[in-house]
Amino acid sequence: MKIIDIETIIFKYKSKIGIDIAGHTHPSEEHDAYQTLTRIVTDEGVDGFCFGGNKKINDRIIKPALIGKNPMDREKIWQYLYRDLQGSRGLISDGQLAVIDMALWDFAGRYLNMPVYKLLGGYREKVKAYASTMVGDEIEGGLNSPEAYADFAEKLVKQGYKAIKLHTWFPPIEWAPNPEMDIAACRAVREAVGEDIALMLDCYHSYNREEALYIGRELEKLGFYWFEEPMDEHNISAYVWLAENLEIPILG
Amino acid sequence: MKIIDIETIIFKYKSKIGIDIAGHTHPSEEHDAYQTLTRIVTDEGVDGFCFGGNKKINDRIIKPALIGKNPMDREKIWQYLYRDLQGSRGLISDGQLAVIDMALWDFAGRYLNMPVYKLLGGYREKVKAYASTMVGDEIEGGLNSPEAYADFAEKLVKQGYKAIKLHTWFPPIEWAPNPEMDIAACRAVREAVGEDIALMLDCYHSYNREEALYIGRELEKLGFYWFEEPMDEHNISAYVWLAENLEIPILG
Repeated sequence: MKIIDIETIIFKYKSKIGIDIAGHTHPSEEHDAYQTLTRIVTDEGVDGFCFGGNKKINDRIIKPALIGKNPMDREKIWQYLYRDLQGSRGLISDGQLAVIDMALWDFAGRYLNMPVYKLLGGYREKVKAYASTMVGDEIEGGLNSPEAYADFAEKLVKQGYKAIKLHTWFPPIEWAPNPEMDIAACRAVREAVGEDIALMLDCYHSYNREEALYIGRELEKLGFYWFEEPMDEHNISAYVWLAENLEIPILG
Repeated sequence: MKIIDIETIIFKYKSKIGIDIAGHTHPSEEHDAYQTLTRIVTDEGVDGFCFGGNKKINDRIIKPALIGKNPMDREKIWQYLYRDLQGSRGLISDGQLAVIDMALWDFAGRYLNMPVYKLLGGYREKVKAYASTMVGDEIEGGLNSPEAYADFAEKLVKQGYKAIKLHTWFPPIEWAPNPEMDIAACRAVREAVGEDIALMLDCYHSYNREEALYIGRELEKLGFYWFEEPMDEHNISAYVWLAENLEIPILG
């Protein structure tokens, strides 16, 4: 059993999602977009697939590194890519490494004819889903006001969602971040959907302690379910302080 | 796919190994000994096995808990036994839990016709082995002196071992523990086997810092490969201190 090829399949498709300079997605005019699919080909007649993977990296590094290796040797392959090829660490990103690892898991599931979640040790057959909004914007028909969030949340509830997470306004919007606007959106959504829908807020990620505490206390009044990454994710002491001063669960 | 029975098979065999009041094994007169084998029976015609498992616990708790469950749901089963049956935690020891988990892994390997180490993600096809002595004793023909360790080590090297770990003298031997005797045994073994055999020491586990430092420095002179658990395993600060004061690797 061995790997005989690595392919990177590139799809072109029509998208109405754009990305701003902060890396956040927004509605956009329809345009061409691209998605890759990494395929690990083996001599068993069974392949492993995972969305993602950079074609140049796959061709130049991953393919010569993996040809001839046993596709069930995930640990050996991971350690080889991560440690032995350390000089290429800048090219083999964590994301690229994860694509290869997941494609190998996908191979294992297909080869053994068993879902990967069962191979890993099953726990449940389904998981709860929540609707997650894009970040706020200034686009006509978009999430451009607290009322727009409320209208959108009502549509989500009609679609059957029992939980909704808001992403509010971020730079490069000139007046963002803005704690009061975050809370205005959260309040409008709570009033629109009532008390039986679980609500979460994932707002700007670099508020200071006072701003985060203000937002957290308002979310507690609005009965929110969690408060996600309001401060620098590396500042553990700030999160300890915030968690001690709030009752709402904090996600780092 | 479901579990339909849990069996505990009990073997009687002849043993020449005895256990002292500290839980250490020694050579002994031949006597009857017992070993259990836990068998998880499924409706797939494939079972999972693991040595160990207490028959009473298997019959009273594990069997009613597991009947009807999917044997690939290792995570669900583990969480159920560990968390949901918390009131029986005193009966379901970590060892018992591990036996069930390993028997379920064994089932997975047999059912999928693939070795478990490959399911987990393979890394290597073989591992280095070292010979590990019993603890010291006062038995004629046993490990009753530094010279006895040296003679035994020479036999191990002749059998092909490239590495040997010594367990030296422990209570209830009246004069144990004794750092000087530990070092005398280590020195005798080093002189007997030469410099090309890797040697490790796993001595008494509750020495104080000064005793551990003395032993560690002597082991460094003798070119030992590691120094294992010389102090209370819960005293992390003592291990930090020892590691800072020695160059030989310390195992906690």
